[in-house]
Amino acid sequence: MNFSPLIQELIDVLRSLPGVGQRSAQRMAFHLLERNREGGKTLGLTLLHTLEKIGNCQQCRNLSETALCTLCLHPTRDKQLLCIVESPADVMAIEQTGTYFGLYFVLMGHLSPLDGIGPQSLGLDSLEQHCQEHQVTEVILATNLTVEGEATAHYISHLLKAQPIKLTRIAHGVPSGGELEYIDGGTLARALQARALVTPY
Amino acid sequence: MNFSPLIQELIDVLRSLPGVGQRSAQRMAFHLLERNREGGKTLGLTLLHTLEKIGNCQQCRNLSETALCTLCLHPTRDKQLLCIVESPADVMAIEQTGTYFGLYFVLMGHLSPLDGIGPQSLGLDSLEQHCQEHQVTEVILATNLTVEGEATAHYISHLLKAQPIKLTRIAHGVPSGGELEYIDGGTLARALQARALVTPY
Repeated sequence: MNFSPLIQELIDVLRSLPGVGQRSAQRMAFHLLERNREGGKTLGLTLLHTLEKIGNCQQCRNLSETALCTLCLHPTRDKQLLCIVESPADVMAIEQTGTYFGLYFVLMGHLSPLDGIGPQSLGLDSLEQHCQEHQVTEVILATNLTVEGEATAHYISHLLKAQPIKLTRIAHGVPSGGELEYIDGGTLARALQARALVTPY
Repeated sequence: MNFSPLIQELIDVLRSLPGVGQRSAQRMAFHLLERNREGGKTLGLTLLHTLEKIGNCQQCRNLSETALCTLCLHPTRDKQLLCIVESPADVMAIEQTGTYFGLYFVLMGHLSPLDGIGPQSLGLDSLEQHCQEHQVTEVILATNLTVEGEATAHYISHLLKAQPIKLTRIAHGVPSGGELEYIDGGTLARALQARALVTPY
């Protein structure tokens, strides 16, 4: 027995959400149909109007409802410090540390030639100009520590090397609470290589 | 730092889906905004039109786009056999066994006085009439084997006891592949109690 066409359609579109497979989509569809039709309608309407209204900040490319986002418009943030990240979620993660007070540049992805994602799709053609206009003194490359993230960081460092900018990369090492026994070899090797001097008290 | 109001609104409505917490909702919202705006719009529109169009079968109460569902309209299914289940997902599960050829009655829940779900919310006021009209000879009580499901089955058996109908309950026992060592005591006690005669070959 199959689901009726409309129920099947509902299940199929719910599967387009990340992390939602056949079973979860089925459970969501039944939940909405049986117990929360109002919530489902609200979800539908909200999806339509938020996707319509939320665009990208003209300066840092982060998701924003206004032409310039609240971070770029912030009066006291250090405009000479620029942190380059892959996604809006990364901006959130860094903001939550409460230790960074510069601006961001959000690539909205990483270089991936096979998928047709080149420097232009990441807005890198405007990066140089941005750095000059804001007299950026330091660029922190905070793309992920994955193969793609590393390649993207590498490309950007090459792109900016002619400019009088200090280029830095976030540290690679053992995470807090990490037990050496369970850390992968690559990370451990990097952590050993990047060992820092200890000042005894 | 907080999300902008519209992004927060999108995350909040996504959290109304079952099994979706703050983190998943955030991931879904960013996924839709960054990579799948078209998919998000389709999801919004589909939610609105399917929730509008899918109702309940007038006869068995299952979800249906038509006044009577395909199962109730099926020409060869045995109308004198009625299986009472809690939800449309249960109908699917039983249909997938390929061993049942009667009709269904879907309660869309179970008795739960504390939540204000009484016999009327489950359509039980029309059940007696349904049984008489279709000259039902057997009612299979296939509500879940939980406290609420058992209570609901118990109530229905009481409701129909005056009628000339054979009342049965799906068997309680050790599931296929179940190892006695790991089965809970209650199930094992029921399985022992319901032991069946073996015919040696």
